[in-house]
Amino acid sequence: MNQTPPPARINGLACKNSALVQASDFSFSGLHIPGNTSNQVGSRVTPVSMAQLPGLNTLRISMLQIDFAPWGINLPHTHPRATEILTVLKGSLEVGFVTSNPQNRLITQVLKKRDVFVFPIGLVHFQRNVGAIAGLRNQNPGVITIANAVFGSNPTIAGEVLSKAFQLIKNIVDQLQTKF
Amino acid sequence: MNQTPPPARINGLACKNSALVQASDFSFSGLHIPGNTSNQVGSRVTPVSMAQLPGLNTLRISMLQIDFAPWGINLPHTHPRATEILTVLKGSLEVGFVTSNPQNRLITQVLKKRDVFVFPIGLVHFQRNVGAIAGLRNQNPGVITIANAVFGSNPTIAGEVLSKAFQLIKNIVDQLQTKF
Amino acid sequence: MNQTPPPARINGLACKNSALVQASDFSFSGLHIPGNTSNQVGSRVTPVSMAQLPGLNTLRISMLQIDFAPWGINLPHTHPRATEILTVLKGSLEVGFVTSNPQNRLITQVLKKRDVFVFPIGLVHFQRNVGAIAGLRNQNPGVITIANAVFGSNPTIAGEVLSKAFQLIKNIVDQLQTKF
Amino acid sequence: MNQTPPPARINGLACKNSALVQASDFSFSGLHIPGNTSNQVGSRVTPVSMAQLPGLNTLRISMLQIDFAPWGINLPHTHPRATEILTVLKGSLEVGFVTSNPQNRLITQVLKKRDVFVFPIGLVHFQRNVGAIAGLRNQNPGVITIANAVFGSNPTIAGEVLSKAFQLIKNIVDQLQTKF
Amino acid sequence: MNQTPPPARINGLACKNSALVQASDFSFSGLHIPGNTSNQVGSRVTPVSMAQLPGLNTLRISMLQIDFAPWGINLPHTHPRATEILTVLKGSLEVGFVTSNPQNRLITQVLKKRDVFVFPIGLVHFQRNVGAIAGLRNQNPGVITIANAVFGSNPTIAGEVLSKAFQLIKNIVDQLQTKF
Amino acid sequence: MNQTPPPARINGLACKNSALVQASDFSFSGLHIPGNTSNQVGSRVTPVSMAQLPGLNTLRISMLQIDFAPWGINLPHTHPRATEILTVLKGSLEVGFVTSNPQNRLITQVLKKRDVFVFPIGLVHFQRNVGAIAGLRNQNPGVITIANAVFGSNPTIAGEVLSKAFQLIKNIVDQLQTKF
Repeated sequence: MNQTPPPARINGLACKNSALVQASDFSFSGLHIPGNTSNQVGSRVTPVSMAQLPGLNTLRISMLQIDFAPWGINLPHTHPRATEILTVLKGSLEVGFVTSNPQNRLITQVLKKRDVFVFPIGLVHFQRNVGAIAGLRNQNPGVITIANAVFGSNPTIAGEVLSKAFQLIKNIVDQLQTKF
Repeated sequence: MNQTPPPARINGLACKNSALVQASDFSFSGLHIPGNTSNQVGSRVTPVSMAQLPGLNTLRISMLQIDFAPWGINLPHTHPRATEILTVLKGSLEVGFVTSNPQNRLITQVLKKRDVFVFPIGLVHFQRNVGAIAGLRNQNPGVITIANAVFGSNPTIAGEVLSKAFQLIKNIVDQLQTKF
Repeated sequence: MNQTPPPARINGLACKNSALVQASDFSFSGLHIPGNTSNQVGSRVTPVSMAQLPGLNTLRISMLQIDFAPWGINLPHTHPRATEILTVLKGSLEVGFVTSNPQNRLITQVLKKRDVFVFPIGLVHFQRNVGAIAGLRNQNPGVITIANAVFGSNPTIAGEVLSKAFQLIKNIVDQLQTKF
Repeated sequence: MNQTPPPARINGLACKNSALVQASDFSFSGLHIPGNTSNQVGSRVTPVSMAQLPGLNTLRISMLQIDFAPWGINLPHTHPRATEILTVLKGSLEVGFVTSNPQNRLITQVLKKRDVFVFPIGLVHFQRNVGAIAGLRNQNPGVITIANAVFGSNPTIAGEVLSKAFQLIKNIVDQLQTKF
Repeated sequence: MNQTPPPARINGLACKNSALVQASDFSFSGLHIPGNTSNQVGSRVTPVSMAQLPGLNTLRISMLQIDFAPWGINLPHTHPRATEILTVLKGSLEVGFVTSNPQNRLITQVLKKRDVFVFPIGLVHFQRNVGAIAGLRNQNPGVITIANAVFGSNPTIAGEVLSKAFQLIKNIVDQLQTKF
Repeated sequence: MNQTPPPARINGLACKNSALVQASDFSFSGLHIPGNTSNQVGSRVTPVSMAQLPGLNTLRISMLQIDFAPWGINLPHTHPRATEILTVLKGSLEVGFVTSNPQNRLITQVLKKRDVFVFPIGLVHFQRNVGAIAGLRNQNPGVITIANAVFGSNPTIAGEVLSKAFQLIKNIVDQLQTKF
């Protein structure tokens, strides 16, 4: 390696000269505006990842806020590259994750205000009902909403695969694939 | 730390004195017997992980063999702690993975004998049809079969959560939960 | 390695059989009780690390809550093994970190409710005034309060070292060492 | 860091916009053609690393196929950045690795079809005789063939060093250095 | 990712084509000139990090030499990204580090020629008196001199914060802030 | 995981209660005694790894001293788990490493007193002539002396393998195998 300095890029973002970084590179405003939850599932995730807060790059951590309408649900999903730790800011929240094969145990709990819960990396998890703050261990954790990944991929997964996977007749699979 | 030596344990397995390790600690026989595929999905995964080959402990790699009946499917699943690289030994295999939100693109291909494919860590993926060998980047990669995790957890996830997630009426969710 | 299974221990905690883990292994209650801030600095940190929430072990993340009396300060400190990401739950909070040699620039900002800020690993940082939630990227992040580490160590650091370090006459260093 | 996006490069390959990746970025064809083994050692390694399958970049895994002529040998070598796990596809294969100083024990075994063996990171190992598939835990594992590194480097290592190392008279070392 | 090759950059340095690297990319001359210690603290650190020895990039190790005048001190500091291991080349050296909260124990020892000592990552440490060589586990370890970070940041930390932190009256803090 | 505390063990060493650690856990004396170099190769390596300095455990760094008789050689070897950075304390030292296949370039240099050189992880390297201090990036780096691993393993590698590898007639290989 030689010393030709120009703007290096890591994970798709150019690195600033350390003499030029500013507080705004390390902060983010926006979580004070409640996320819009008037949608089918009654929840909204507002991420604060590398894209929103560039200074997170290489630091392997991020944050997100989840707003919920009454009985809103953050649908079953996984983070392919992050463990998640969460606390409840208002109301109470039912949370759960499912352990891997062969047990597939549901580990679930109703959290009250300020209770804390951890969702280990890669496991399918969900939350139901009221405002929470979560920290994730990756500056770009990724999210995979199970139903969307499975029934709403583009192009679609062969109906037969999903029919076997979910033990649903092909007709229902076809219908589902039109919904996502 | 002091030097009291006795059998250390890492990841749940005791470490052998390095002077006592033998070839059998680093090898595994068993893949020559075709996995039994007479089941509902027509496939069988035979893992060679830390549990089968103790010498893999701490080395962050493992292998598995997937046998397929004609049109057998390895159902949509994720590995929470491993990327997977696969090659086809016989016949041809349709493979695919779905990228994370918001795109949920299906990246799919029909592989012929000895073609190689990689499934990035944590992404939902599946395979359909004939015998393959895969290497995984973790000595204990874990597997989460999506449908089982979602509809077959124990205890079950609240029907309402799944009803919203999969846009299925509650009746069908109830039925599905009895099948897994 | 051989297969003698008994309770493995990682980072000082025994690992439970995965079939026996319960929701209580992954959750923590206690942050709803405001931390007692009637002390000299007007702040109280309540950690939710591996010691409080055993399921965090190996997952490399933790959380903490900081309560502040009016004008309370979380004194300059470092986390030797963790980056910290923080959001403000109530009021407004002045935060800052100092970059490493030779620049020693103070990167500081006044955060309002729900603003987010990141303190990169190992850097000296502080906060002043109102309630915040932080996630840390290590299940056992450690904390080093600068003044305590420097003037309050046990035994004390040679007065001459501190006298040179802080350009204080020996008398004042002696006095300081009695206060911490 | 700021957000000027252009094509980032990691490990020497430009990263594609994730919306543009295709199945061909994650697959490789070529192992179906048997490697040409009509050479002095009767073996041929066909790598499927980052250079052949760009989607492997950052995923820390790769694969390779080794073809053998009757009694062909994959000469003693090391992978400086990867553990290797291997299975035998046809015939039988003698494999071995040598543990580090001071024991230098040879751990060796004759593998039959579909047996699996692991070569821990950095250890000198070899294989003799029939077709195998291996997974390596690094997208760019590197290979060092011992004899080539030692006697065939360019420029050559001082004859005296090798003479002492291998306890060979200088003449023989000189001859060897002309052969590699 | 595709294969457009041009000069990749990692951590701000362009990577040379591996066919063009030379011995000078992996070596550094300069430690033979004693560091100038005619300064207030009687010590001088000469780093051999990525900036001085480009080949260290990605290898996660570096070295530094510390020269001391009689009774010279390497002031209390931390390395935010590195553990340090040190040996004494001449004379004797008092070394110490302070453990994290709540114990803040000073672990200290007088080292004689060629004794070795380790300072765990992120902990506040110092040395007093004679020439030492140290290896650090990061190619860009960073250094934070406590007093400079605390009293000499630019801009300055609010006097009140430091007054509380160090239990010094505001006047003395003001004076200190003019000295650094 | 639950909280049954008893002496945890990591990498084969029991962890001390952090309240009981002492300076002696972090220091090592012994390098002041020159290593005995009256042997066939005229060099002696004195390691300061986890076994000699228990506090290095988990910190991923170690140190070693190499003493040389006039024209002594530290034979070609690799460290399977560590990059090495070295400085020369007395005299001058010829050092070199060989890059991996297919180039096998020898990168070599004569170092003078206090020059610094880095040997990247896993590459075959050697040194010839005078006293040096090296830091290694792993608390248990391992050493593989090439000739010993290849000709002196126990049991021996099949003569035919080595005969092909080194292009030596079987007789010479047989002789060599009796020497190591």
